[in-house]
Amino acid sequence: MKFFLSILATILFLSFPVPGRCTDTPMSDGTQDCLGCHEYSHPGIVENWQKSSHAQTTVKDAMGVGAMSRKVSAKEISDTLSSQSVGCAECHTLNAESHSDTFEHNGYDVHVVVTPQDCATCHPVEAEEFSHNLMSNARNNLAGNAVYRQLQVSILGTPVYSESQKSFSQQAANEETQAEACYYCHGTRLEVTGFETRDTITGELTFPTIKGWPNQGVGRHNPDGSKGACSACHPRHGFSIETARKPYTCGECHTGPDVPAYKVYSTSKHGNIYSSKSDEYDFKAVPWTVGEDFSSPTCAVCHISMLTNTEGEVVVRRTHRMNDRLSWRLFGVPYAHPHSASPDLTAILNKDGLQLAAAFDGTEASDFLIKPAVQAQREETLQAVCLSCHSSSWVEGHWQRFENSIQTTNAATRNATKLMTEIWNSGLATGLDQGGNPFDEAIEKKWCGLWLFYANTIRFSSAMGGGGDYSVFADGAYQFSESLREMEDWYLLRRQSAIDSGARGSY
Amino acid sequence: MKFFLSILATILFLSFPVPGRCTDTPMSDGTQDCLGCHEYSHPGIVENWQKSSHAQTTVKDAMGVGAMSRKVSAKEISDTLSSQSVGCAECHTLNAESHSDTFEHNGYDVHVVVTPQDCATCHPVEAEEFSHNLMSNARNNLAGNAVYRQLQVSILGTPVYSESQKSFSQQAANEETQAEACYYCHGTRLEVTGFETRDTITGELTFPTIKGWPNQGVGRHNPDGSKGACSACHPRHGFSIETARKPYTCGECHTGPDVPAYKVYSTSKHGNIYSSKSDEYDFKAVPWTVGEDFSSPTCAVCHISMLTNTEGEVVVRRTHRMNDRLSWRLFGVPYAHPHSASPDLTAILNKDGLQLAAAFDGTEASDFLIKPAVQAQREETLQAVCLSCHSSSWVEGHWQRFENSIQTTNAATRNATKLMTEIWNSGLATGLDQGGNPFDEAIEKKWCGLWLFYANTIRFSSAMGGGGDYSVFADGAYQFSESLREMEDWYLLRRQSAIDSGARGSY
Amino acid sequence: MKFFLSILATILFLSFPVPGRCTDTPMSDGTQDCLGCHEYSHPGIVENWQKSSHAQTTVKDAMGVGAMSRKVSAKEISDTLSSQSVGCAECHTLNAESHSDTFEHNGYDVHVVVTPQDCATCHPVEAEEFSHNLMSNARNNLAGNAVYRQLQVSILGTPVYSESQKSFSQQAANEETQAEACYYCHGTRLEVTGFETRDTITGELTFPTIKGWPNQGVGRHNPDGSKGACSACHPRHGFSIETARKPYTCGECHTGPDVPAYKVYSTSKHGNIYSSKSDEYDFKAVPWTVGEDFSSPTCAVCHISMLTNTEGEVVVRRTHRMNDRLSWRLFGVPYAHPHSASPDLTAILNKDGLQLAAAFDGTEASDFLIKPAVQAQREETLQAVCLSCHSSSWVEGHWQRFENSIQTTNAATRNATKLMTEIWNSGLATGLDQGGNPFDEAIEKKWCGLWLFYANTIRFSSAMGGGGDYSVFADGAYQFSESLREMEDWYLLRRQSAIDSGARGSY
Repeated sequence: MKFFLSILATILFLSFPVPGRCTDTPMSDGTQDCLGCHEYSHPGIVENWQKSSHAQTTVKDAMGVGAMSRKVSAKEISDTLSSQSVGCAECHTLNAESHSDTFEHNGYDVHVVVTPQDCATCHPVEAEEFSHNLMSNARNNLAGNAVYRQLQVSILGTPVYSESQKSFSQQAANEETQAEACYYCHGTRLEVTGFETRDTITGELTFPTIKGWPNQGVGRHNPDGSKGACSACHPRHGFSIETARKPYTCGECHTGPDVPAYKVYSTSKHGNIYSSKSDEYDFKAVPWTVGEDFSSPTCAVCHISMLTNTEGEVVVRRTHRMNDRLSWRLFGVPYAHPHSASPDLTAILNKDGLQLAAAFDGTEASDFLIKPAVQAQREETLQAVCLSCHSSSWVEGHWQRFENSIQTTNAATRNATKLMTEIWNSGLATGLDQGGNPFDEAIEKKWCGLWLFYANTIRFSSAMGGGGDYSVFADGAYQFSESLREMEDWYLLRRQSAIDSGARGSY
Repeated sequence: MKFFLSILATILFLSFPVPGRCTDTPMSDGTQDCLGCHEYSHPGIVENWQKSSHAQTTVKDAMGVGAMSRKVSAKEISDTLSSQSVGCAECHTLNAESHSDTFEHNGYDVHVVVTPQDCATCHPVEAEEFSHNLMSNARNNLAGNAVYRQLQVSILGTPVYSESQKSFSQQAANEETQAEACYYCHGTRLEVTGFETRDTITGELTFPTIKGWPNQGVGRHNPDGSKGACSACHPRHGFSIETARKPYTCGECHTGPDVPAYKVYSTSKHGNIYSSKSDEYDFKAVPWTVGEDFSSPTCAVCHISMLTNTEGEVVVRRTHRMNDRLSWRLFGVPYAHPHSASPDLTAILNKDGLQLAAAFDGTEASDFLIKPAVQAQREETLQAVCLSCHSSSWVEGHWQRFENSIQTTNAATRNATKLMTEIWNSGLATGLDQGGNPFDEAIEKKWCGLWLFYANTIRFSSAMGGGGDYSVFADGAYQFSESLREMEDWYLLRRQSAIDSGARGSY
Repeated sequence: MKFFLSILATILFLSFPVPGRCTDTPMSDGTQDCLGCHEYSHPGIVENWQKSSHAQTTVKDAMGVGAMSRKVSAKEISDTLSSQSVGCAECHTLNAESHSDTFEHNGYDVHVVVTPQDCATCHPVEAEEFSHNLMSNARNNLAGNAVYRQLQVSILGTPVYSESQKSFSQQAANEETQAEACYYCHGTRLEVTGFETRDTITGELTFPTIKGWPNQGVGRHNPDGSKGACSACHPRHGFSIETARKPYTCGECHTGPDVPAYKVYSTSKHGNIYSSKSDEYDFKAVPWTVGEDFSSPTCAVCHISMLTNTEGEVVVRRTHRMNDRLSWRLFGVPYAHPHSASPDLTAILNKDGLQLAAAFDGTEASDFLIKPAVQAQREETLQAVCLSCHSSSWVEGHWQRFENSIQTTNAATRNATKLMTEIWNSGLATGLDQGGNPFDEAIEKKWCGLWLFYANTIRFSSAMGGGGDYSVFADGAYQFSESLREMEDWYLLRRQSAIDSGARGSY
């Protein structure tokens, strides 16, 4: 069988010209073998790869460029790898022994899932930084947090109506639903559950079955024990720096009312100029020079990329630990607060014993958060980007408003939570203190939307200078104030009803 | 060889240079007469046409290319037509006798509305396929369905407040409102109501007055008895294949929470790569080669276009009957279900006597729907596209989650509908069984939004691999669960009020 | 000190090559001095300017082109200015004496904020027109209107919960919040509050502190007494006509449900073609020729730009008083109505004594509005654009539907307001007549959303031929009818409760 397959592979290989061969970049025998079949069976990804830097440069050449232009951060790479392009075989057979998804495939030990640990062979600095980033912990920080698990159940659970009780109970969502929902972005847990044999164009072949696959969430748990997915932002199989630097990549996960960064950016002055002029920008230049290569920032400009000025001096260093430039955590929490000191948020315990950086009354679990000095340092790093185009007074004015927005949205949330607490205490809803899920009743959802969507959107709008509609009418202050008044209205009616029926507290 | 090529280049250069009359493409006398005035009075559309393939190629030349590259599907076309470009006169005087909008215009029998029947002169396969598509029936399937008529009245009707009764009744919307709303996409009925004389730059001229005009809805009823509008996706007067292949065209009608395909696509991995790299794609290539001409799909790639692999083999055949590649109907209905066997949905009758493929309790009217074998075949057709870039295990994993989403959203809707039924039965709202419109009261609208917007958005997000926000926070599971809890909250309060007032049932 | 600084500036100037110098366009000494430091300290804006027409043309050359192509509308400009490019010094030292933000800066009297009065040196016609435009009055028209101030407080105010009263009061929003919200688009009031000394790369320097800065809102109050900000649409420091002509610029402020022009455009046929083909358009051509330079309109095409036909004849004149082409005011008001005769809306007084063009019952304050003859003239101006690509019957059909939408949405709002008035009169909410804020209670916000978002979105969708989803399911008729039924539902329950408790009117 193996013999037959290699004959077939040879035939396929000989009859279909492999595009990569047109360039002079040497390709490994392994990759040539892969292409022999896959160029035919998966033309889309093969062609995509052919156009990539991975296909068109040897690692050695990539390492030979000046320090500022280098994209390969490894100091040493084996001769075997470095003398060739980075093809199918290079990534999909790396570290085979540590991959539980490794399988024998036409004479090669291939694994399905390429992980940050694999990418670290050439890009160790980026992988290391990313491992200390909140994103690589995105799965854990959700699944390992008891409060968020309650939120998740209240949203994703399947409602079951009891005709006798005339009310709903909630069944936990199955794994497929979870993988499509929260964990699409946060990352699934990939687990090899067995192997199966399939008919393919080259005959019967055996492949691993992987629970949680496919997935490219930023905090994915991989079959080699690593966390994250570089392909979340560097999509397969072009791994284009251009795509990662454009805002659409971030928009995949940062677009809904819970984290409206992309929407706010799109209607900001920055986003306007980007949309209008970005066809004149150079998204591939490394280093990336302010003014010369682009004249309006994208997400990557402010949060990730290394920038230089026209003198070639570094404005800001590259980082794949994006919170290096972020002093405040704005979203996914009732109260904005200084970022957590550790990217593992599950260790946080606030005064109420919850894994949230601020208690429901707003009191911060300060021991777990970065100190003002660290905040100041991160601000300075980010503001170095702003100052490339804006005067100090502009930047200070902007920042002052941003911190004001944090204060006012936190204060507004605190006030709304006082009413919610009154509702819980009066027995009209069942909160944590009453042994219930604080997110699953109608009135609780109203309260939750207040901070999860609206306070949050106001903050994003303020942070990114988007102002205008997202601060006010598009999931902003209008909707915040409306929800708040609806909570009040709800409460007053039920309180009145309770009084009227002489049955207060019987709800 | 080089000599031959330079001769050929010279010939090509001489035969097709610059747009319009400057080119050597022969133009009919009729079209030249039209341009005599219209180039001046309507420069926008004339210039647009000048840049089109219609202006720059004779039909004969268009028919002369290889079978795979041919865009003209007619086997034979009259010499008169085929020896010239396709200009104003060609389309606007075709089949004059069957057009009730034909009028005498400077010596020509011209009609205003060009219809699929006109386009079929050169593109009969596409017109025929489209006539068997759901879209060409879009007007009928809405206007001819008693349930949807009730939905339409509940939405578009003008509310009239009675000060004595202190409540609203609904007046049917007038035809102008209907044409701006549902029938903007579904298509109006065009009806010649008379003729009127206008002053023009060339003196007094007579034109037909057409009720329902303008409109380019996909299921438009035309003055020649045909249905549909090719210009819905191939906008006048460039009729560009590039525009039809880009996602913005589909986004014109598929963008709201009722059918959020474009929004979901925009934030999907596919949409991200498209936005980032599509300036490098070739949107005019026929055949359209995966990987070579594009590396991320648009709507047309998955649902309409003929695709080839890099060997020139057909991956999937072209179809203008888009449901050829769709096994499930996802939107516009309470329950997702196998597609209808016929594109005319008005013939469906479910167990409750409604023209809906599934009854309110979820029971399918199976006799009217495609069988599992047909579903399987359609899945295979669509998955052939996926498999150009993804492994079998990827595609299977995706599909399994998609079908899970159908099951869970249907189950959730079924549960919500049980509560709605309880509300109807208890007399707190007036449903179909009580002789009322099931969509027009506040609580009914809450229930309607559940499936029409939220269950639906979850399914689209799942189907298109968009995941993330549209599954959860952007019209997804969060909003579904919130509406459900609000329905419950509404019911419990009114039930309690009824008990308290000792007047249960008096509502 | 001054001496030291100019020495330093000279050193910096000599050591860093100034890109602009590569071109042959003469640059003033002042601008060269500015660039000496700022090329290093603000590379982003300097590079942006280098690529602009301001940097690459002398004023004299810009004035020398034919009348139709001229962008400089001044008839005479001093020799000093006109013989050079328009650089930093030209704009930031103009009219120094009238700027309260002027400060001594390295030997120059520099002001921070460049205003329409400064731009008027070369572009007086545009500045004059803009000063008569609603936009330059956007701050006043909001801040100077007592009704809108109540709306603003109800939205932006910080809620304060009283635990004893168990209800909320509203604290007025602080100036930072206002500047981030309404006045981000409407414009802040810039006020020099003092001067401060900062450490800079060239030593200690003194700068003015400006309250309300940064801001680029269209109705900004400037330190020279002028109103508006050209940079709202012509972003610093490229001032690109291309950017102003693309729809993203308008989308910065016209995107939320209160004014969804950009969203509606994006999904319209016009927006589809723009998205698909605009890379082939010429956005810099002056004059701008229909069909030749573009084949689908952007916002600027219909509302601002001068257009010519392919014969070079003017289709429509350029205007920076955008309401020149607008007969109806559609948004931000309960009822659509003929535009105000004056751009200062604060002078309007309706029959109820409010500064609104129509009273809550819909009665127009006709004395303040343009007459039908003026409306007709404006329609004709706008329709001249439509007629470049559409037949008269198309345009008339469209317009008839648009005016129908105005009638039906106004009628629907009138009916909803009757119910709201009943609620106010019955004491269930506190409106204007009861001495309250008519926008701050839950039921009032429901009513407010009806017209501010939904009636309004229907009208925009109708006006811009976007039809479809924005007319119906995306903040359109569905949401209008749902809110209306929820108002009714709210009222009936409370009325019933009041009857049941024998305490009607006690609310």
